[in-house]
Amino acid sequence: MNMERITSKTNPRVKSAAALLDRRERKKTGLFLLEGARLCADAAGNGVTVETLFVTQEAAAKYAAECDVISRTANSAYCVSDAVAEKLSDTLHPQGVFCVCRMPQTVPSVDPDGLYVFLDNIQNPDNLGAISRTAEALGFAGLIVSAGCDIYSPKALRASMGALLRFPVIVAADGAALLRECAEKGMRLLATVPDRDAEDITKVTLSSGAVLVVGNEGSGVSDETLALCADRVTIPMAGRAESLNAAAAAAIAMWEIKRKA
Amino acid sequence: MNMERITSKTNPRVKSAAALLDRRERKKTGLFLLEGARLCADAAGNGVTVETLFVTQEAAAKYAAECDVISRTANSAYCVSDAVAEKLSDTLHPQGVFCVCRMPQTVPSVDPDGLYVFLDNIQNPDNLGAISRTAEALGFAGLIVSAGCDIYSPKALRASMGALLRFPVIVAADGAALLRECAEKGMRLLATVPDRDAEDITKVTLSSGAVLVVGNEGSGVSDETLALCADRVTIPMAGRAESLNAAAAAAIAMWEIKRKA
Repeated sequence: MNMERITSKTNPRVKSAAALLDRRERKKTGLFLLEGARLCADAAGNGVTVETLFVTQEAAAKYAAECDVISRTANSAYCVSDAVAEKLSDTLHPQGVFCVCRMPQTVPSVDPDGLYVFLDNIQNPDNLGAISRTAEALGFAGLIVSAGCDIYSPKALRASMGALLRFPVIVAADGAALLRECAEKGMRLLATVPDRDAEDITKVTLSSGAVLVVGNEGSGVSDETLALCADRVTIPMAGRAESLNAAAAAAIAMWEIKRKA
Repeated sequence: MNMERITSKTNPRVKSAAALLDRRERKKTGLFLLEGARLCADAAGNGVTVETLFVTQEAAAKYAAECDVISRTANSAYCVSDAVAEKLSDTLHPQGVFCVCRMPQTVPSVDPDGLYVFLDNIQNPDNLGAISRTAEALGFAGLIVSAGCDIYSPKALRASMGALLRFPVIVAADGAALLRECAEKGMRLLATVPDRDAEDITKVTLSSGAVLVVGNEGSGVSDETLALCADRVTIPMAGRAESLNAAAAAAIAMWEIKRKA
């Protein structure tokens, strides 16, 4: 590749790319910043629009195959210094490959016969990423994200191993309205709660599409959301199941629900 | 608390504490470095020997209750500058509370009637931490760690939310020998594999203690370990289950095994 070089951290292209580490800037521009050779190549290969590739000389050699895939679709590409890579990265040890990408404009719709996970104000990007990856792996129809962490957070994208860009993800501006729509379409809404009086999730039977609602790490499913859910389900366990991490609890709940579908 | 102040990153106590970020140094000294107010207080409250507490002035005020618990058992305590905190931390945004702790000397033994998870060369500290947390939450008897990531890695300790310090963890110098001992005691050894010909994990029945073997993130359970395991089990799934993250796959496998016990 023959690329223009950028060595200054104050270069305007670098500054506007680095600004995308901030959620407000992402929202304003409709762009996001992706980091990592494999993630970027995976996104480019899956139809995500890549505006700009930034890559260090070392990374261009090390990840030649990935950079090749990316630069075939990228609108522009720059070779950057290590100082620029550090400015663009939110990791301690940047790999040296970054893409400015455009958020997809089309929002997937909910298939009433499908199984969905609804994240009610999940805060931790690692949890968001891990849950999206598990949902994809277990064959869920899609993920609905209501409030909480941004799906374009660099950390969430990394933790998802790209699932957030491959998998149908619906960001609900009004989660309650969307849940009501799902219920009207005949879907069952199952809220996961750490409550021994709730229905044992292993006993649930399903005959239609369903939405599994997973709550916030600290406070669980909100009262407003709970009020919309016909069913409350729980993971019955001898140990200290209430201390399961949100991603592990979600994995077990998704697994149980999927087995019933 | 009335504490001596340390403001220099080259102070010998700071240097020897920071050296514990390196695994070899931990092995040589039998000490490890714990970061975070809650983790440190939890360790101190659970009988871990705290040699030294380092805390920034800001953190001492913010986490007064935790620092109180720690300093009651710590052999010495120092108030440190932000520069020292950065030197001791392996996070981007240090909380400002650090403890040098002593590794426990007693190694838990394997209860032949118990359920154990055996980690065969797990590399990622986040996975090690998450799996230990899930094993504790689901009521497993303990965790066996063979090769791979150090259980005293600061990242693993954080990801475990302290489970690695509360829960029976056996670090096996010779994992194969330990597995043979478990088999001789009548325990079933179940290797988890991404292989559709293996036994469906939902169909497994257990009548004794068992060891669930979880493999390396990239290469799975090693051939040497596989040869020792009487059973190979797999997670059957319509989706792309082979792409489950190690921690999510382990959570689902542990959950299924625990239901049978």
